[in-house]
Amino acid sequence: MMPRLIDYAEAGPEVRAVYDAIKAARGVPDVNNFWKALAVDPPTLRRTWESLSQVMAPGALDARTKEMLYLAVSMAAGCAYCTASHGAAARRAGMDEAMFGELLAVVGMAAETNRLAEALRVPVDPAFET
Amino acid sequence: MMPRLIDYAEAGPEVRAVYDAIKAARGVPDVNNFWKALAVDPPTLRRTWESLSQVMAPGALDARTKEMLYLAVSMAAGCAYCTASHGAAARRAGMDEAMFGELLAVVGMAAETNRLAEALRVPVDPAFET
Amino acid sequence: MMPRLIDYAEAGPEVRAVYDAIKAARGVPDVNNFWKALAVDPPTLRRTWESLSQVMAPGALDARTKEMLYLAVSMAAGCAYCTASHGAAARRAGMDEAMFGELLAVVGMAAETNRLAEALRVPVDPAFET
Amino acid sequence: MMPRLIDYAEAGPEVRAVYDAIKAARGVPDVNNFWKALAVDPPTLRRTWESLSQVMAPGALDARTKEMLYLAVSMAAGCAYCTASHGAAARRAGMDEAMFGELLAVVGMAAETNRLAEALRVPVDPAFET
Amino acid sequence: MMPRLIDYAEAGPEVRAVYDAIKAARGVPDVNNFWKALAVDPPTLRRTWESLSQVMAPGALDARTKEMLYLAVSMAAGCAYCTASHGAAARRAGMDEAMFGELLAVVGMAAETNRLAEALRVPVDPAFET
Amino acid sequence: MMPRLIDYAEAGPEVRAVYDAIKAARGVPDVNNFWKALAVDPPTLRRTWESLSQVMAPGALDARTKEMLYLAVSMAAGCAYCTASHGAAARRAGMDEAMFGELLAVVGMAAETNRLAEALRVPVDPAFET
Repeated sequence: MMPRLIDYAEAGPEVRAVYDAIKAARGVPDVNNFWKALAVDPPTLRRTWESLSQVMAPGALDARTKEMLYLAVSMAAGCAYCTASHGAAARRAGMDEAMFGELLAVVGMAAETNRLAEALRVPVDPAFET
Repeated sequence: MMPRLIDYAEAGPEVRAVYDAIKAARGVPDVNNFWKALAVDPPTLRRTWESLSQVMAPGALDARTKEMLYLAVSMAAGCAYCTASHGAAARRAGMDEAMFGELLAVVGMAAETNRLAEALRVPVDPAFET
Repeated sequence: MMPRLIDYAEAGPEVRAVYDAIKAARGVPDVNNFWKALAVDPPTLRRTWESLSQVMAPGALDARTKEMLYLAVSMAAGCAYCTASHGAAARRAGMDEAMFGELLAVVGMAAETNRLAEALRVPVDPAFET
Repeated sequence: MMPRLIDYAEAGPEVRAVYDAIKAARGVPDVNNFWKALAVDPPTLRRTWESLSQVMAPGALDARTKEMLYLAVSMAAGCAYCTASHGAAARRAGMDEAMFGELLAVVGMAAETNRLAEALRVPVDPAFET
Repeated sequence: MMPRLIDYAEAGPEVRAVYDAIKAARGVPDVNNFWKALAVDPPTLRRTWESLSQVMAPGALDARTKEMLYLAVSMAAGCAYCTASHGAAARRAGMDEAMFGELLAVVGMAAETNRLAEALRVPVDPAFET
Repeated sequence: MMPRLIDYAEAGPEVRAVYDAIKAARGVPDVNNFWKALAVDPPTLRRTWESLSQVMAPGALDARTKEMLYLAVSMAAGCAYCTASHGAAARRAGMDEAMFGELLAVVGMAAETNRLAEALRVPVDPAFET
């Protein structure tokens, strides 16, 4: 299967409604390729957009911290598209070069110690469980 | 191989020196199981501690944000020990229940969209590359 | 190392025998790149083809269900080549656009709840063990 | 952090409403540990239940196929809790021992060829892209 | 589903034949739990044993190197059972404590640089492709 | 974010010092893209180079075995860049085609049995723990 991207012009009303909501919420003239690809299944498109809107709304954590967490998880998962898109989003939300460098260092260090802890099958300390 | 934990009493001088450094830096009476397991290879123990100290020192990002990034990556990697230990560390650094709930939501949402983007082999938008 | 693909013309007899078996079984004029790459190690080529033939033969599950399971696992593993090749195979075996959309939704949802269950270190319910 | 499970008796009204919906939809007297763990963040609990209900409702694919896809992805992700819970759900939806054996074989085989395709960086065949 | 282990006494003839082959090849009085679990699907049990025998036979690489590679991959995959069983096998094949320490260091370091290379989406150097 | 590569000419003194150390240690006229990408965060660049030098120095294991372990882990992690770069390094350290074929077979087989062991949640044999 070739990656298929559905543009606004060829989209049906259910897909257009989601595209309109994304464009309005973000103040952008067009949606990203992720949404155009997800439009192959309109219910998944709509549900993903609604969930993402709720999850990424500022709350106890500010938008920049949320985007940096999203970027770190995407890096750990090795998703190139997600790393590019959430890297751009985190920068728009205020992540500067120094913050990015430290985020990168944490992601790398965590990957190493995650593997070491699993490789050695380290038992959880009782102190962590209180 | 059974997980082997090396206590201070049975450790050689190279291992004890690292244990002493950890206890001093953290103001704790004993080191966690992770370090006791890593002590099977003293050079890895020392190098890991030195790297971790540098990476986790507050800089452009504060300690709480760094610990939350570490926790999110550990959750994404499915490392139970790391999730427990960095969950405890993030709480000590100020993560409250509401922040933890939002971090959890971001980790789950990112896991879903990471898979969707890869499943659909979405091409990177040119706008992300500038 | 550059990805090296071994064509029929340059292949030795052990590799040609496997290529012939694949072409006969599938009724195709040439084998896919996966097999041409695997031919760098003829025993692995042969063993993989024989195992795959056995595993994918219709049995308690029909060919379409097996190909959809293969596709879902490949998506979860983030393997772009496998997602493309098993996406094509699943469509040939009868997966239509609506089925693909629902498969995509399950893969995404499972990725999210897999991470949430591990992040929260949820203990297995006794009821699942009977 | 110890895994914390929130029982109905100690739950607030938002959590109870979701628990009631799950119990009604499934005809069970209590919810599984997954939901009790997710209740630490009520919005994530509610959103996950609503999404799961939509995704797992029979449509172009029947309930058994959907549960088997969910199980296969959970196995591929190495999530022990999810493997146990969706294994039980797939059996309730009609997966018998022979089907499970074949699903297991596909998951194992896919894991192997996913790695081989990535290890050899196999280029996608043009034929897959049409 | 509870992990089900099939002992020799309750096994059918196809399973017993594989158990006998494993016991003869390894000179052990009983098979490991992995084989007892895999016996839920006799064709998968047989195919896995036959493949493993071929793959792990000494060839261009000696048995110790093969077991250390198997262990390193199992650690990287976070498989606790595999880490325990191939850790034991690698020790039987001659891996001593110093070798294990260096293997552990490589696994941890590779995990870190794997993530960093993917996080930064580093383009492959032309020099690697010749 | 576009992958950014920092050449010697535009690098500051801290980065140049690391580049000089890499070039001297390896006897090469320029560093690989990995280092040029990592230079976005000079402390991570320096720390990664120093750690890698220590980890990969011959010790109880020779250079070829260490590079093959690194390659196997990188393949298992699905890191294309790392597979290309450590494939080239392992060949320089003496891995020939036959060794590569056997390494590939082990990586594939381990991926399969890792998943099967986790899918079946196999309990660790007491014999492995002594």
